[in-house]
Amino acid sequence: MYADAVQQVIDELGRLPGIGPRSAQRLAFHILESDPADVERLTTAIVEMRSRVRFCSRCFNIAEDDLCGICADARREASVLCVVEEPRDVVAVERTAEFRGRYHVLGGSISPIDGVGPEQLRIRELLARLGDEEVVEVILATNPNIEGEATAMYLARLLEPRGVEVTKIASGLPVGGDLEYADELTLGRALEGRRKLGGD
Amino acid sequence: MYADAVQQVIDELGRLPGIGPRSAQRLAFHILESDPADVERLTTAIVEMRSRVRFCSRCFNIAEDDLCGICADARREASVLCVVEEPRDVVAVERTAEFRGRYHVLGGSISPIDGVGPEQLRIRELLARLGDEEVVEVILATNPNIEGEATAMYLARLLEPRGVEVTKIASGLPVGGDLEYADELTLGRALEGRRKLGGD
Repeated sequence: MYADAVQQVIDELGRLPGIGPRSAQRLAFHILESDPADVERLTTAIVEMRSRVRFCSRCFNIAEDDLCGICADARREASVLCVVEEPRDVVAVERTAEFRGRYHVLGGSISPIDGVGPEQLRIRELLARLGDEEVVEVILATNPNIEGEATAMYLARLLEPRGVEVTKIASGLPVGGDLEYADELTLGRALEGRRKLGGD
Repeated sequence: MYADAVQQVIDELGRLPGIGPRSAQRLAFHILESDPADVERLTTAIVEMRSRVRFCSRCFNIAEDDLCGICADARREASVLCVVEEPRDVVAVERTAEFRGRYHVLGGSISPIDGVGPEQLRIRELLARLGDEEVVEVILATNPNIEGEATAMYLARLLEPRGVEVTKIASGLPVGGDLEYADELTLGRALEGRRKLGGD
């Protein structure tokens, strides 16, 4: 029904996550009607990104040099390592401005269904860093879903015997959330993780 | 916070309609982690589309040749013209498989706020077609919003004195919709456009 070249773009856009057939169609027509300079900027940016961006040789965060901006920053503490699944999780933690240590990006989570076992993740590289960088604490910040939890459990068992402190970020009610609308799993976690007020 | 090259892609994607900052970020990381061949196919498809696709010299639908697939199809009736705002509207009408005539794509709707007057639309070209193609009926299928309605009114006034029948697609309750949840404008239109059952 469309000219082939348009259908091609719709198909390719529709392969991207979160873009359904309708959005793909709207986007294709938008691109078709856009200023050629805008389209050129978009495609160039994508090609540029793919050619320039690589992974940090130390933490596997995205980087434009051998080390990522965080690993290259001498002010970041080497003694605390925050383990995340993906580079985008680094961005999420950085946004909190609460963490001054370094990261380790696993490149996913253990998920037998998707054929991802521990050996597909950058766990060997994590273990190597423990000694090299004199790590005192490893904070596990995998996603609070089945795969993330399984990965955290796996790592905890692996890391604890090596004499580092292993912690895990808290699960519970989101700030600004509403108890009434919380799902039972989250609320269960929030109860389980309850803390004494005033004391400690 | 991101490597520059990644931020660039996020910015460019974020300019596309319906893609917020969060989706732009997710898409950029997806592209970053995709198979290079997939990324290449996407960018090539976009570049190809921009270079190959043009507008039908007769109806201004998208086309890969001088005429679009519909205008080039000798089986389509020349006597009925369906006037739409954009090429994507052609696709929507075609999907119904109810229309066997040709189209005329205006390239938008009259919208003084956006600085679009009748002279920015392909109205002169529409008038030229009336004589050339022996058009008997013009079906106005502009969007059922303020701009689309204004455009339809403008066209009706312009076309009626020229001896063609001018009709407008019906407004009313969507099929499968729920009367209870219909907005009052739509319900008002549905009432206004009521038809005698059995008779006619």
